[in-house]
Amino acid sequence: VYSTSADPGTLAAVPQTESAFDRATAVARTEGGGVRAELDPGWDVGNGVLNGGYLLAVVGRAALLDSPHPHPVALSASYLRATPGGPADLTVTPGPAGRTLAHATVVLTGAAGPSLAVQVTTAALGTGPADHSVNPVPDVPPPDACVSTRQGGGPAVGLARHLDTRLDPATAGWVHGRPSDTRLLRAWIRLADGRDPDPLALLLFADALPPTAFAVGKPGWAPTVQLQVLVRALPAPGWCLVESRSTEVTGGWSDEECRVWDAGGRLVAQARQLARVAR
Amino acid sequence: VYSTSADPGTLAAVPQTESAFDRATAVARTEGGGVRAELDPGWDVGNGVLNGGYLLAVVGRAALLDSPHPHPVALSASYLRATPGGPADLTVTPGPAGRTLAHATVVLTGAAGPSLAVQVTTAALGTGPADHSVNPVPDVPPPDACVSTRQGGGPAVGLARHLDTRLDPATAGWVHGRPSDTRLLRAWIRLADGRDPDPLALLLFADALPPTAFAVGKPGWAPTVQLQVLVRALPAPGWCLVESRSTEVTGGWSDEECRVWDAGGRLVAQARQLARVAR
Repeated sequence: VYSTSADPGTLAAVPQTESAFDRATAVARTEGGGVRAELDPGWDVGNGVLNGGYLLAVVGRAALLDSPHPHPVALSASYLRATPGGPADLTVTPGPAGRTLAHATVVLTGAAGPSLAVQVTTAALGTGPADHSVNPVPDVPPPDACVSTRQGGGPAVGLARHLDTRLDPATAGWVHGRPSDTRLLRAWIRLADGRDPDPLALLLFADALPPTAFAVGKPGWAPTVQLQVLVRALPAPGWCLVESRSTEVTGGWSDEECRVWDAGGRLVAQARQLARVAR
Repeated sequence: VYSTSADPGTLAAVPQTESAFDRATAVARTEGGGVRAELDPGWDVGNGVLNGGYLLAVVGRAALLDSPHPHPVALSASYLRATPGGPADLTVTPGPAGRTLAHATVVLTGAAGPSLAVQVTTAALGTGPADHSVNPVPDVPPPDACVSTRQGGGPAVGLARHLDTRLDPATAGWVHGRPSDTRLLRAWIRLADGRDPDPLALLLFADALPPTAFAVGKPGWAPTVQLQVLVRALPAPGWCLVESRSTEVTGGWSDEECRVWDAGGRLVAQARQLARVAR
């Protein structure tokens, strides 16, 4: 068990990488034996609150530090409170670890207190073909024929600067003031720094689109309460396609169903979150 | 924090109820301040291993003991190892609690060690109409025109004795040796003791059907690795309809997508699990 260390500790050197994502999600052991991250306030979704997918990638890195397996395959997170930028401690409690998979619980504690509690399963993902799939990739025009969230009414938040997001014109009417009646968003997505996707980036992509309420002309805050992300395969280099859909809104709660395909049209991640919504 | 108590403790009296489900999922405080359950070996899925939905209901009860809110609305669980019947300790670590919802982490430790680690969110569920829903109830013949899992090739496990499960004939060919090519199961379900559904029973129903591989003629063990259940509304009395579907099988992993509707055709729960499957 790596417990949260009380001493200031020493962060390891920032990784020698050109990738803003890798730098912003870096974790390091402290001299006290804990794990620490320096959360980058630039990955926010407004009001100084960091994006949930970004935080999940930080948690994934912490879980991998001591896992015998190389990839995060399932993360189920409770978002306890909003997380601001700044130093954060990660408490990793390993569970059973076997030849096929390993379990851990990770709690992220930032400036505001414990803000994320996550069940993590790690294993080795492959690239071979699926044995069975009923997740055909949606038919979306190529990225250059899509609508960049930077050119329109998308939220001007830090997250949007780190991602290149191109909305399917069929789900982008709201950007031009013509909302749909369908709570559905589809978009090509990649890291703005050009870094290719991997399972950690998929954790980010699974919570990177605006709330689907934007599609029906109801922009607003939709804080995630719980989020489960399953990573199903190693993604090919290049763009990923993300589809997010709300299927049930009731009593101030909304689900957000998310699927991610890689550039080869393969399903690489699935996610579902429960969020609070304005009534 | 209720820590696992080392002393033998004292179980409170078994609830005065006619419901086998209520008795089997009862939790009680021990004199040492912990929470304990007596896991009923009769809720197994074979090999003395208890059903994951049954265990989740026990965890849900433990989380509600100290919550200011009455219902489980989101549970995300890692199944660390198989859980046998017998005494189990539940460690409940409360998280932030507000007017709308409260968080907790619950770890269930049975005879084989810690076997279930769960992020739990509690709140108050309603019965009012949904504001938005694209989850129409499937068209399934009434229960008496369906196929009881007790009459056919369903697994002869303890769980099957506690549930009355009636398979949609359209997804029951496998019972009579005529498997489908679709990994889909639909069934009416209710507790065999006649107890009406509530959010705790929905936690059970979300993991109560056989693995969907049965539908395509591939029966076998499919241990759950992680399971997220969202309870979306209070169910009406009577039968529930459960639909379970596997959308992606790859590298020895399968998802199981589950939706539950109540007798009024309202969506009351959604779940997704990641399970291991034979290759």
